Amino acid sequence: MKIGILSAGGDCPGINAAIRGVGKTALLHYGMEVVGIHNGFSGLLDRDVELFTERTLSGILGRGGTILGTSREKPFKKSADGYLSHKPQIIYQNYHELGLDALVCIGGNGTQKTAFKLAKMGLNVVGIPKTIDNDLYGTDFSFGFDTAVSVATDAIDRLHSTASSHKRVMVVEVMGHSAGWIALYAGMAGAADIILLPELGYNLDKVNDKVIERAQRGKPYSIIVLAEGLRTGAESPSDYLSHEIEEATGLETRRTVLGYIQRGGSPSPADRNLATRLGGHATELIVRGEFGRMVGQRNGHMVSVPLQEVAGRTRLVPVDDDLIRCGEKLGISFGH
Amino acid sequence: MKIGILSAGGDCPGINAAIRGVGKTALLHYGMEVVGIHNGFSGLLDRDVELFTERTLSGILGRGGTILGTSREKPFKKSADGYLSHKPQIIYQNYHELGLDALVCIGGNGTQKTAFKLAKMGLNVVGIPKTIDNDLYGTDFSFGFDTAVSVATDAIDRLHSTASSHKRVMVVEVMGHSAGWIALYAGMAGAADIILLPELGYNLDKVNDKVIERAQRGKPYSIIVLAEGLRTGAESPSDYLSHEIEEATGLETRRTVLGYIQRGGSPSPADRNLATRLGGHATELIVRGEFGRMVGQRNGHMVSVPLQEVAGRTRLVPVDDDLIRCGEKLGISFGH
Amino acid sequence: MKIGILSAGGDCPGINAAIRGVGKTALLHYGMEVVGIHNGFSGLLDRDVELFTERTLSGILGRGGTILGTSREKPFKKSADGYLSHKPQIIYQNYHELGLDALVCIGGNGTQKTAFKLAKMGLNVVGIPKTIDNDLYGTDFSFGFDTAVSVATDAIDRLHSTASSHKRVMVVEVMGHSAGWIALYAGMAGAADIILLPELGYNLDKVNDKVIERAQRGKPYSIIVLAEGLRTGAESPSDYLSHEIEEATGLETRRTVLGYIQRGGSPSPADRNLATRLGGHATELIVRGEFGRMVGQRNGHMVSVPLQEVAGRTRLVPVDDDLIRCGEKLGISFGH
Amino acid sequence: MKIGILSAGGDCPGINAAIRGVGKTALLHYGMEVVGIHNGFSGLLDRDVELFTERTLSGILGRGGTILGTSREKPFKKSADGYLSHKPQIIYQNYHELGLDALVCIGGNGTQKTAFKLAKMGLNVVGIPKTIDNDLYGTDFSFGFDTAVSVATDAIDRLHSTASSHKRVMVVEVMGHSAGWIALYAGMAGAADIILLPELGYNLDKVNDKVIERAQRGKPYSIIVLAEGLRTGAESPSDYLSHEIEEATGLETRRTVLGYIQRGGSPSPADRNLATRLGGHATELIVRGEFGRMVGQRNGHMVSVPLQEVAGRTRLVPVDDDLIRCGEKLGISFGH
Repeated sequence: MKIGILSAGGDCPGINAAIRGVGKTALLHYGMEVVGIHNGFSGLLDRDVELFTERTLSGILGRGGTILGTSREKPFKKSADGYLSHKPQIIYQNYHELGLDALVCIGGNGTQKTAFKLAKMGLNVVGIPKTIDNDLYGTDFSFGFDTAVSVATDAIDRLHSTASSHKRVMVVEVMGHSAGWIALYAGMAGAADIILLPELGYNLDKVNDKVIERAQRGKPYSIIVLAEGLRTGAESPSDYLSHEIEEATGLETRRTVLGYIQRGGSPSPADRNLATRLGGHATELIVRGEFGRMVGQRNGHMVSVPLQEVAGRTRLVPVDDDLIRCGEKLGISFGH
Repeated sequence: MKIGILSAGGDCPGINAAIRGVGKTALLHYGMEVVGIHNGFSGLLDRDVELFTERTLSGILGRGGTILGTSREKPFKKSADGYLSHKPQIIYQNYHELGLDALVCIGGNGTQKTAFKLAKMGLNVVGIPKTIDNDLYGTDFSFGFDTAVSVATDAIDRLHSTASSHKRVMVVEVMGHSAGWIALYAGMAGAADIILLPELGYNLDKVNDKVIERAQRGKPYSIIVLAEGLRTGAESPSDYLSHEIEEATGLETRRTVLGYIQRGGSPSPADRNLATRLGGHATELIVRGEFGRMVGQRNGHMVSVPLQEVAGRTRLVPVDDDLIRCGEKLGISFGH
Repeated sequence: MKIGILSAGGDCPGINAAIRGVGKTALLHYGMEVVGIHNGFSGLLDRDVELFTERTLSGILGRGGTILGTSREKPFKKSADGYLSHKPQIIYQNYHELGLDALVCIGGNGTQKTAFKLAKMGLNVVGIPKTIDNDLYGTDFSFGFDTAVSVATDAIDRLHSTASSHKRVMVVEVMGHSAGWIALYAGMAGAADIILLPELGYNLDKVNDKVIERAQRGKPYSIIVLAEGLRTGAESPSDYLSHEIEEATGLETRRTVLGYIQRGGSPSPADRNLATRLGGHATELIVRGEFGRMVGQRNGHMVSVPLQEVAGRTRLVPVDDDLIRCGEKLGISFGH
Repeated sequence: MKIGILSAGGDCPGINAAIRGVGKTALLHYGMEVVGIHNGFSGLLDRDVELFTERTLSGILGRGGTILGTSREKPFKKSADGYLSHKPQIIYQNYHELGLDALVCIGGNGTQKTAFKLAKMGLNVVGIPKTIDNDLYGTDFSFGFDTAVSVATDAIDRLHSTASSHKRVMVVEVMGHSAGWIALYAGMAGAADIILLPELGYNLDKVNDKVIERAQRGKPYSIIVLAEGLRTGAESPSDYLSHEIEEATGLETRRTVLGYIQRGGSPSPADRNLATRLGGHATELIVRGEFGRMVGQRNGHMVSVPLQEVAGRTRLVPVDDDLIRCGEKLGISFGH
């Protein structure tokens, strides 16, 4: 058997661990041939590939980025006048001319959508979820998330000393376009006073009240953690909020946007193990001939779901999430 | 309501997070009085206590150690001639004279055993599991474990460069008296070549074969991770094994015992959140009047189990654990 | 003897280490009384002070922030119509009424200026330099700088994997208002391709040329590190430059502003030792009666300089700094 | 011009940074050819070499280990009956047959001795100091030292929480065969209570007195940091001392041997910059034709010293070192 593997979409700690998980299991345990495809779906269009050996997969478990490169190429994207390009057909052809028996696609929502469409064309596709935002349907946790939470928590820890030495309000913007998982987990772990999630929205008066109430109790400093996807009507939610809070409370307010440092660098041990297991399980699905599915983790176990169910869905933080309820009882404000 | 809280047994990252979780939920949400008991069960014998305020619980989430102190005092320990001391009676009396309505005991196996005995005497006890070894029955994960795995993985990462620069076999001994959880998780995350667990035992010839086979494939270096509890017949398993391997393979072999650095210091974000949730849930049990139970996490949710079921049991790594199977297919040897 | 100590100005890792250095040397070795003054010069105006014991100074060496708090109070600031307030007189009086024989002022340029003016009024003042920007005259290195460089380098390391996986230009803005020390040291340690310092200015065409030349050599990604004080004519230098570069080169360009995470948190070991030594040396100056001076480090040794020489001067990166020359020969562009 | 470069002796964070510093300066600035020699002097015996390109030197600045490998081959080692082998002659020949104009040797004391002997044979040799112990004559600091101090300090920080939670004496053994630099710097940065250096020796009674005096002041825990080279008469100084102290003081005492984790892994930013500068300066010496010298750092500047002066000398901690005096006045015991 001969399988191909590619990584598409944004950077995420643990991609190399997943590639290694797929590749070593296939090469060493099942004796398959493994073809690494460069730069996401672009590499399938250009046949920019390499044959993996054990050596290719050695020493990469803890490394950030992806040894395969990535791209945002979307082969099924329609032209302005609504026509599909020839790209899907070229991919279909190259898949067969490369002699592939299966294709593993590591990526986020967009990638899993493309994977589903390729599966419908008849290719043997298996998806591996990859998103630091942790918002993919079909898995309890995605690799990259634990690392992003660690980087964000470490940053919040550092901001605490400045906030309290200076009696300042610090507004910290973390990643999370539609889902507030990073804000919730890093906010809780970083002892934030206020956590604002896209799923819950917020009431500005309640936020200000909390800041003022703390100041009145002798704590003229607060840490506010919010997701970049928080809808405020302004382009930058942290910029907007820090101005509003400073004006309303009279307390010096500063913002920090953590940005890309959350998505690069060496994966945490938990992310390494999760990515390794997901990679290994993807190879198992291939062996069993279970295609058109994405691997995931549920209740600590490896599972898989039809790509059809994953494509186009987003896993948001439930408004009554256990961690939110826990936080509320600790006195943390969620903006309401 | 007035509740007491104590921490007993060994140090473990996250104890302060658990204390804060119990205390803030009790103080701020339920308006209880909270009494911190110093130095484990010793403090209940000596009435060495303090009344918590919000201030006591502020700024401790990320701090290692325990603000309450701890001790190995075992009040139910019998004398040499088999008699119980008066200690249980003194604790019973002090509990009532302090006006406590409930007692939260943060600790490992021994502590939960004591908690169970106090519950049988009629005290309203709730247990919170605490062990970096992750071997307590009744919870999927204990806080401290993720931090210990992170420290151990970071160390193994460092040893890789020395192993490969020097063509050396490095034997790394991590914590885990009866259970090999840390060795398994840190070994997998640290890209160990051989992982040895107390649960599986090992065959020395197979270990040597693996080392030699790697050398023959151009990799005259190997990383071996083992749990301190591995039974080798010698006092120090890493000392014994490094000698045996050096002799059998002729390759330079060095050992590193990670020791206490695995159990101290700031908890990881995951451990902070787990400890916080367990702490909050312990307070919930008190509110509901569910005593004689230990809180835990199962499939991501807060649960509780009767102390009776926990006491005296150890949660070992199953021989067919998913992560072991995953590792075997990657080519990692488990000594068989 | 009785001495006072205060910290003023912005947060900086190592202030507590310096406080401990002054205080323990004074208390334990010289048997002085030590008074901690809260919130910078505000505390001298309000007599908001505490008497230090050994216990106050225990466990603070590695902690971020300042146990004394800080403020930006400038007692010599003139009113709009050019009059001095009574504040200097109040400070003079309180110094004597508190029975102080000397006053240690930990702070940056503004603080040392105030210290100098207090010295001219006849108070026995010793200054300790504190700036993460490393731009104080009179010392080779300031504590906080090594920590800031570590935080910034760690962030740049993380951005490398995203830059290369995505073929992107990453523009990283680090601290440094007038001096580019952090940009230079973190840029070199983080393997930046282009480093832009306020002292050297830059030529936009040369920056673009470097980015394009790299792309032509098969490296369609670059890391650009710049100091926040770089004069571009725009409010945000990284915002301005990332737009200009994207437009000129056609390469996707992203910016990251590291911000406050560089100035908070636990000090690095080197900063702890530097701050400890500076603190200890400040106490030595007091013992010797050498007032009106700021302590510093020159060629690895403790020295001191008259506050008069320090006040109002800034230590910039020399245009022919060794590290710049070294970087140029490695192929790093400094924008010329 | 064509130059060779090799790394010999033990692992040390920053070797790759030094290789990159030499290589990029030579390749990119001076247009030299650069030959990487594998596995220290072994590679010169076997002509196991590779031609460097810019690509070889890309992405290695922050990586631990050495891309060239290393070995402990000592070509001038005499046989048991006192004869030199032919190895020096073979190296001499290979140097010329490879067409080398100069040879850069990165290594510790042994390596610099060999380099000196090769220089006396007429080869154009330049040495680069490499030792985490920081004990090479001719340079104020060696790369690897700052990283080792950081790893050790981080470990000591972790042990503090266990020591104080448990009321224990923790004995921490750090690297340093003849010199106590790591023990001194990490002990000071880690807030050790007692620091024991080979240069100073120790008086067991004084050590015990300090531990007991602390316990009497309400601190029944102490952190003792010692160098592995401390002469106690026993094989393991930490083992010996922890037994002696436990017996003499009655306090529970535990030891931790940090071992190899101090010498592997990614170099600190300061070590990266130091190694880069030393590497660049080595290339400068070659350009100027200044051979038979080792580069070093003195008072922040690049310097060089004759290999003759370096060979066989060890730079110990002076008994009146500034940092020792500073520590004594803080109340830290140095065992006297």
